[in-house]
Amino acid sequence: VAPSFAPPDRRSRDDGGVDRIAVIDMGSNSFRLVVYGYVPGSWWALTDEIREAVRVGAGMGDSNELQLDPMDRALHTAAVFDSFCRSSGVERVDAVATSAIRDATNRDELLDAIHEHTGLEPRVITGEDEARFGYLAIANATTIEDGFGIDIGGGSVQLMRIERRELADSVSLPLGAVRLSEAFLPDEEASGKEMKALRKHVAEALEGLDWWSAGDAPRLAGIGGTIRNLATAAIKDGDLPSIDVQGFELTADALEDLIDELASRPATKRGRVPGIKPDRGDVILGGALTLQAAMSQGGFDAVEVCEAGLREGVFFEHLLDGRDPPLFHEVRRGSVENLSRRFPTHPAHVEHMAKLSDEIYEGLCAAGLREASDEERELLWAACMLHDVGMTIDYDDHHHHSQYLILSCGLPGYTPRELMLIALIARWHRKGQPDASELDDLERKGDAARLRLLCGVIRLAEQLERSRDQVVESVAVEADKHKLRLAAQVNGRRGDPSVALWSAQRHADLLGAAVDREVEVEGPA
Amino acid sequence: VAPSFAPPDRRSRDDGGVDRIAVIDMGSNSFRLVVYGYVPGSWWALTDEIREAVRVGAGMGDSNELQLDPMDRALHTAAVFDSFCRSSGVERVDAVATSAIRDATNRDELLDAIHEHTGLEPRVITGEDEARFGYLAIANATTIEDGFGIDIGGGSVQLMRIERRELADSVSLPLGAVRLSEAFLPDEEASGKEMKALRKHVAEALEGLDWWSAGDAPRLAGIGGTIRNLATAAIKDGDLPSIDVQGFELTADALEDLIDELASRPATKRGRVPGIKPDRGDVILGGALTLQAAMSQGGFDAVEVCEAGLREGVFFEHLLDGRDPPLFHEVRRGSVENLSRRFPTHPAHVEHMAKLSDEIYEGLCAAGLREASDEERELLWAACMLHDVGMTIDYDDHHHHSQYLILSCGLPGYTPRELMLIALIARWHRKGQPDASELDDLERKGDAARLRLLCGVIRLAEQLERSRDQVVESVAVEADKHKLRLAAQVNGRRGDPSVALWSAQRHADLLGAAVDREVEVEGPA
Repeated sequence: VAPSFAPPDRRSRDDGGVDRIAVIDMGSNSFRLVVYGYVPGSWWALTDEIREAVRVGAGMGDSNELQLDPMDRALHTAAVFDSFCRSSGVERVDAVATSAIRDATNRDELLDAIHEHTGLEPRVITGEDEARFGYLAIANATTIEDGFGIDIGGGSVQLMRIERRELADSVSLPLGAVRLSEAFLPDEEASGKEMKALRKHVAEALEGLDWWSAGDAPRLAGIGGTIRNLATAAIKDGDLPSIDVQGFELTADALEDLIDELASRPATKRGRVPGIKPDRGDVILGGALTLQAAMSQGGFDAVEVCEAGLREGVFFEHLLDGRDPPLFHEVRRGSVENLSRRFPTHPAHVEHMAKLSDEIYEGLCAAGLREASDEERELLWAACMLHDVGMTIDYDDHHHHSQYLILSCGLPGYTPRELMLIALIARWHRKGQPDASELDDLERKGDAARLRLLCGVIRLAEQLERSRDQVVESVAVEADKHKLRLAAQVNGRRGDPSVALWSAQRHADLLGAAVDREVEVEGPA
Repeated sequence: VAPSFAPPDRRSRDDGGVDRIAVIDMGSNSFRLVVYGYVPGSWWALTDEIREAVRVGAGMGDSNELQLDPMDRALHTAAVFDSFCRSSGVERVDAVATSAIRDATNRDELLDAIHEHTGLEPRVITGEDEARFGYLAIANATTIEDGFGIDIGGGSVQLMRIERRELADSVSLPLGAVRLSEAFLPDEEASGKEMKALRKHVAEALEGLDWWSAGDAPRLAGIGGTIRNLATAAIKDGDLPSIDVQGFELTADALEDLIDELASRPATKRGRVPGIKPDRGDVILGGALTLQAAMSQGGFDAVEVCEAGLREGVFFEHLLDGRDPPLFHEVRRGSVENLSRRFPTHPAHVEHMAKLSDEIYEGLCAAGLREASDEERELLWAACMLHDVGMTIDYDDHHHHSQYLILSCGLPGYTPRELMLIALIARWHRKGQPDASELDDLERKGDAARLRLLCGVIRLAEQLERSRDQVVESVAVEADKHKLRLAAQVNGRRGDPSVALWSAQRHADLLGAAVDREVEVEGPA
């Protein structure tokens, strides 16, 4: 049936060549619609989202029967999502239903009603599929090559073992936060005995899984709303820089503190703990205890939070259709390129800036002024690629806007500290005195000096590319005890390098101070 | 001559239908290249900029001859600008030369060299044209219908009188900041006698202009780098919220304080006054004294800063080609629409949100719960139009991003306080407790309550448009002593309103508290 109204015209501004797909996740706790925009082979981004705490699995208990009120909420929410897709003109919709609906004896009643009253055709995925989508999210948004994953949902929990970026083992178990909360923590107050029983139940369910053991590959990534909420709460509780939960390490100790805090409150007040969504408050303790038991059983000291989840897994299978498994080649590089392509910059300029920056950095190392570090080279490259993204917001102060954009959008695969460093190098690429204090608790020894050096380098490269015409083709570096000489090789056919060279000279103080040398920028003889 | 390299392809992301034009302003103090992107009839924005303090008028003195070094700098800078335009693939370039070049006896020497070595063909504009471009900037970026304008450049000063948005009188005088600084303040220290002589020189030059008199239309707008720098310095000096210089009122008193501060320093240290660009430090005092004398002569107590200037005037004549004079119809409405169209949102959704918000607001007023205010209606409308612009940055936290975008980009025609209010209403359109403290010194009596009320309204409208499908066509408001009833009129063909209505009910607390009533959201019987 054609919609009775014209879809809004978004093409006038940015939809040239941008495909969109909506993934609808009909989970046991909440239903969520997410829209991804993407240009195949170039970039992708989450562009829209609508969430409803449907709690479709509420009251299922041992009967495994969906209850009337939850089914009613599910149907109306499906209608809203359907309407949303149609009015936004999203072309493709992939709706998946997980644990609660999968396990319900009367699931067809709900699915038929959705089919009759909306344009949606949800597919009920198996526990195995659910684990696979979780794995795709983790393998595409973290640098884990060998390690583990855990996805705590409302109805089920998925555990995964990853080996050389492939899914080696997986299991889906009916241990979700809504399910176990209802079964073990039914009252306002949670007793120690009840909590112990829940943990024991989880431990017993995992006992036979001999592959669930940290061993030599102790990295564990966690996905799902329960883990994201717990991480946000731990960040707020520890007063840590709250850049992003992506990449945050939630330790077993911090988790224990949170559990104590949550257990000390009645169920209806747990949603007021900062970082916990109010509508998740009554099931967060159950989810936290499940996570604790699973970590303990496998011998994990911490879980790395991954913002991507089931929905991204479903999306990646569409986006990377044809690859088996559908993985990005390099997560970190891919994150940077993705962000850089999401916003219009000058590709030839940023790539040449990255080249010049790298030549200067390499030259400093070769001249013995810095110990070569792959990490620093990579940070510098990423900052070059992203230094101008802020122009999307406004030309004025675009260096500030670049910092804001990088921190707001995040870079999966990088740690919060690395993300902040990249943002700060971009922030100071034009002018001003770099300030490492924004790193706060994330700061490591040497970061202040590292920031000054890398900002000094990027600032020179920016000036050498002043007319964005690659007139300065490359830079050679020479140093003695007092001077640092940068000799620019020029392609005269591309333009006049004189102002760029002069301007680079005027912006050389920062690098000069960082290496304690007077900098001389020279053109061709 | 075709460039020897392919222009970078920016079309892949956003250049569908976007035209670009570069305006090059070869001023007496600095040369500036600005690139404007625009879709005729939809939006425009400054998208790129490159500035060089060429100081082409340096040392001209009474001989009115461009000196060798300045001409050399001018030529090289022109080459950089030319190269920049070519590598960016900008299709149209309009280069204008003002006072210093206009007045130089040997100007053809420079113009011929530029013509020979670059692709630029600068046109030397008359003082009359320069005043007209300044007027176009002011009339298109402020709400002045009847008033005055002043443009302090490096070589000349333009004064204008505006009547019913038309240019009624204008003059261009050789009183620019570089020119008068060289003539009257040649040394490191400025004596009281020298400063007095400068002011006297300006006063005498203006004596015959009987139209230069505040009278009944005392609004004066100021453009040019001198005035922008002075305003920034005044904002920093007064520790005022530094949103934007656009719309800032620089009072005669604040100007006097700044002059005292600047005069107490040697010329080479005036550029260190916070807000003053270092390369403008040596001529800022001359410019400030000129402004002071001109304000005093005309009887103006304050000057409103306008960020737009000569370059925008030149651009507006291209953009609004066909209108005489080339003016936007309504500056404030135009600013909001321009910003809303620069970033992709859902036009049908934002416009319908604005309609529903207005209906609720009007209903509250009709029910006697609020005194109707055109200002509040307009703020609410603007916030609705812009509430989703932050989605351009990232979907997550887009309400924060909308605030950031609105404040970063500004809205010419609105005061800083109004701009901040619009940004805050957009910021709180989804959740949380509105907080007026960010208004800081800009806060007026009643703003905290105003913010709560308007955020309460926009939040309800957002939920009624939850599926962005205009299923809720309109809202009727009724109130008694205890209750506020919002009755939604529904277009059932567009979708299922049940979750939207339920969701609106759950988000009604803020409005309820603002009008001290319990809110009931009702659908059709």
